Amino acid sequence: MSDLLIKNARPMAGEPSDILIRDGRIAAIGVGLAAEGVPTEEAGGRIAIPGLVDAHTHLDKSLLGYPWYVNEVGPRLIDKIDNERKVKRDYGLDAHVQSMRQSLQSVGCGTTLIRTHVDIDTDQGLVALEGVMETRRQLAGVVEIEIVAFPQSGLMRRPGTAELLDRAMALGADLVGGLDPCGMDRDPKGHLDTIFALAEKYGKGIDIHLHEGGELGAFSMEMIFERIRARGMQGKVAVSHAFCLGLPDWNVSQALIDTCAELDVPILTTAPPSREVPSLKRLRAAGVRFGAGVDGFRDTWGPYGNGDMLERAMLLGMKNNLRRDDELLMALDVCTTGGAAVMDRADHTLAVGGRGDVVIVEGESVGEAIVTHQPRKLVVAAGNIVARDGKSLRERP
Amino acid sequence: MSDLLIKNARPMAGEPSDILIRDGRIAAIGVGLAAEGVPTEEAGGRIAIPGLVDAHTHLDKSLLGYPWYVNEVGPRLIDKIDNERKVKRDYGLDAHVQSMRQSLQSVGCGTTLIRTHVDIDTDQGLVALEGVMETRRQLAGVVEIEIVAFPQSGLMRRPGTAELLDRAMALGADLVGGLDPCGMDRDPKGHLDTIFALAEKYGKGIDIHLHEGGELGAFSMEMIFERIRARGMQGKVAVSHAFCLGLPDWNVSQALIDTCAELDVPILTTAPPSREVPSLKRLRAAGVRFGAGVDGFRDTWGPYGNGDMLERAMLLGMKNNLRRDDELLMALDVCTTGGAAVMDRADHTLAVGGRGDVVIVEGESVGEAIVTHQPRKLVVAAGNIVARDGKSLRERP
Ligand SMILES: [Zn+2]
Ligand SMILES: [Zn+2]
Repeated sequence: MSDLLIKNARPMAGEPSDILIRDGRIAAIGVGLAAEGVPTEEAGGRIAIPGLVDAHTHLDKSLLGYPWYVNEVGPRLIDKIDNERKVKRDYGLDAHVQSMRQSLQSVGCGTTLIRTHVDIDTDQGLVALEGVMETRRQLAGVVEIEIVAFPQSGLMRRPGTAELLDRAMALGADLVGGLDPCGMDRDPKGHLDTIFALAEKYGKGIDIHLHEGGELGAFSMEMIFERIRARGMQGKVAVSHAFCLGLPDWNVSQALIDTCAELDVPILTTAPPSREVPSLKRLRAAGVRFGAGVDGFRDTWGPYGNGDMLERAMLLGMKNNLRRDDELLMALDVCTTGGAAVMDRADHTLAVGGRGDVVIVEGESVGEAIVTHQPRKLVVAAGNIVARDGKSLRERP
Repeated sequence: MSDLLIKNARPMAGEPSDILIRDGRIAAIGVGLAAEGVPTEEAGGRIAIPGLVDAHTHLDKSLLGYPWYVNEVGPRLIDKIDNERKVKRDYGLDAHVQSMRQSLQSVGCGTTLIRTHVDIDTDQGLVALEGVMETRRQLAGVVEIEIVAFPQSGLMRRPGTAELLDRAMALGADLVGGLDPCGMDRDPKGHLDTIFALAEKYGKGIDIHLHEGGELGAFSMEMIFERIRARGMQGKVAVSHAFCLGLPDWNVSQALIDTCAELDVPILTTAPPSREVPSLKRLRAAGVRFGAGVDGFRDTWGPYGNGDMLERAMLLGMKNNLRRDDELLMALDVCTTGGAAVMDRADHTLAVGGRGDVVIVEGESVGEAIVTHQPRKLVVAAGNIVARDGKSLRERP
């Protein structure tokens, strides 16, 4: 929570302005601002955008810092899950070290707010959660981290997992996670009843991974809707991926989207080029809260990615065939204030009163900033300078 | 056509080797090579790959060098086409200057072979073709350029265009182009008969843009197949985009793919995240020649792209959900030797006897080189050093 005066920045590529941050909040935006004793940074006419928000990732999975992982994993979801548990054991992967590495990589890219899913399973228990919680403590003031207790290896199919999730919530996880109630656990009722009960017990929200496509995904969505209605959990249950919202049958997908709006079910996407995905424009038109994330990267699941949410805005734009500059602004909005809104942070905005998270980026327009995603010039979190020229000031372990 | 000795490179991330190029051809690959009087470059243990091949682009369209183009264009194909002709006039766009800019941008990224479509229409006549041909002359020895005479604004719907295409072929275009015979020209028979007759008259090949999706695209593909059979033009007709080969109905798309194999119809993709696309694995399994391109970039059509075919290999991998290292090798192959094979250049290969096009890239593995696509360390075309550290040695106009 610091003071900072950023001179000569162009908020959202508008007119050159100064941005004054006091006590970690934006106190003024205007021309010719001065503030005695406040440290000053010159933005040189570059663009200022809000802090980038990575609303779906896995800080405990990345192999950053290790030699290149040669991926020879089988094609099924369960191949990837079983392989990952094995690699974690073989490498002796330390979730604290890996989450520090990934978080600082993301900070270098301008991310100031992260929602991460953390694996909870009967092999490793709560050790990954404890590691990521330690990272959260160490990076307070640098990046905000929200933690989802995530049953990656299944819930009903691995007895003891529900009890571990319960302990994870008691330890301080922010949300209860879930995963493909049909495809993974083969018991959608058991899976969903368990996580909804846990969320209710701790008065917390839910964020469910739903990769299930087509009619199967639609069925799981309906079972989620039923439980939100029954328990009055409107606004508390987010769905990640939600590929079924991209179902080509317009009537089916629109009914699902409309119900997401009615029950205030936020949707998180990673905009994978290979899948049907929820349409940015349709979700926004329906008024559904919509954020984006980089998902896991450079891990046993796949090789792509680097933690850059400005590049993700580009991928989101390409996936949604957005070409106009006004459309690119929407893509950036999803990757900043959109994701923050999913996390109930209405103050994550580049306006007076907003949190002092500002990223200074290169480009003539916001569109150019997105498509070229050059190294971030300056990253400010709650008034603290946390990165310069694409690198976090804090060294990676 | 020069001599060069590259020391200590790892061909396709294999063992460190030296690569000797004589008279523009790879003369030897081995350990401890020496060659008196031959200039030497140290690769420092980095990876060597073949020259990247951009097998589908539009050198005359880019607005590189101009201020950011604010895109406010309407959603239909015809909106984009009409807008582009207007912008060309308003800007006084010089196809020679723009194609120099884009070509040298691509050379900086490691591209040594390009197939470009060049607009031929009744507004501008052959001026774009002449401009790109001048670029080809000026960049001889730096990058090879193959030219398709492309009726971007339509053929049957704009009388006089067929005659211009005829003159373009007489002037020295390498292939006859075409565009959505149903969707654009509303006269598939007239469109296809015209371009096939032109190709036959000049003894040249064809490369048709086919954006038409679903059953409409399948219908146009069948009309193309009929003409290949009737005129014995097997191996001479390529189809760009061919979204219909990604039709979810497996039987329909497989029949089309099998016919592409039977008639030797090469397919070119740009792997757009927003569309159904031909599957890399299905095309390779069927034995269809398959290349990739960046398409136009930073133009009035859309903001994305930078000419980087290594990044395109990443997008191709993401689009095809390729995660394994052996799969990433396939993606790179499509972006190098695959595209070259579409252009009948069997000698575009990193092997003794192959053309001396070598790109030195950063990375521990080919997979890492693709997903990080860091600036190319060195680019060699026919033994000439043409770029270093991501920048072509020749200055852009
Ligand atoms: Zn995930
Ligand atoms: Zn094209």
